[in-house]
Amino acid sequence: MPDALYFEDFPLGEVVEYGGIDVSVDEIIAFASEFDPQPFHTDEEAARAATGGLIASGWHTSALLLRMNCEAFLMRAAILEEAGVEEVRWQLPVRPRDRLHVRRQTLASRSRASAGEVEFLYEVINQNGLAAMIQRSVLLLKQRPRLVTS
Amino acid sequence: MPDALYFEDFPLGEVVEYGGIDVSVDEIIAFASEFDPQPFHTDEEAARAATGGLIASGWHTSALLLRMNCEAFLMRAAILEEAGVEEVRWQLPVRPRDRLHVRRQTLASRSRASAGEVEFLYEVINQNGLAAMIQRSVLLLKQRPRLVTS
Repeated sequence: MPDALYFEDFPLGEVVEYGGIDVSVDEIIAFASEFDPQPFHTDEEAARAATGGLIASGWHTSALLLRMNCEAFLMRAAILEEAGVEEVRWQLPVRPRDRLHVRRQTLASRSRASAGEVEFLYEVINQNGLAAMIQRSVLLLKQRPRLVTS
Repeated sequence: MPDALYFEDFPLGEVVEYGGIDVSVDEIIAFASEFDPQPFHTDEEAARAATGGLIASGWHTSALLLRMNCEAFLMRAAILEEAGVEEVRWQLPVRPRDRLHVRRQTLASRSRASAGEVEFLYEVINQNGLAAMIQRSVLLLKQRPRLVTS
């Protein structure tokens, strides 16, 4: 179903929640071994001494947010441009057996000729209701095509 | 070799280059299938029509930057905090068979009590000498321990 979600589908101030991912030891170690092989991400023994146990690479949490965004809406959105990120904060450690979901808020909504820019604040919330990570980024979306009737 | 690189090892204005990664079709598809399954990242046929061929997820390029940073200096740095990212821009597509390296510049250097904050600009440069991606982020590092002689 291409182009099912348009600029108008993300109104200013809207807050939605979605997702639900269980973080596993194996996935934490697999991601970190490939991209972020610092011992507190890859080695349970070393992590216990350094940080009280294994913690996920912040970039792994970012990737899990991306997966939840794809499943919830990105795959169906009429995206013209998604060219960057304004801010990422890793506020709390993400550990094995954490359960994460997303709270997304539309912070800004700017209409342009036949397109529109939407700024989202994403919070990755853990099983204790705390935001382990936040991210702000801007999407450029198509506006919903108008039906022309004569 | 723990704690080999301190705040003082990243002076203001310093520019260094490092890394060297060949991007493969298989890795692009593997990353995207797990975290960013939009068709122009996972399906060569669909990508040919949409974007002139497969392109890597921007977050995959970020993860490759992370890997090159780990290898070049992060694993040896006396990091106290690495809590976020100020900005990411994906400026040019990254495609199979691209070769990427990193240019890192120290944009700011702020000393604190026994620690120091360093702001880096990372550019991910392709085989044509063009920055496919930039990232700005801040590291909090220990200062080099002083030898006390009596």
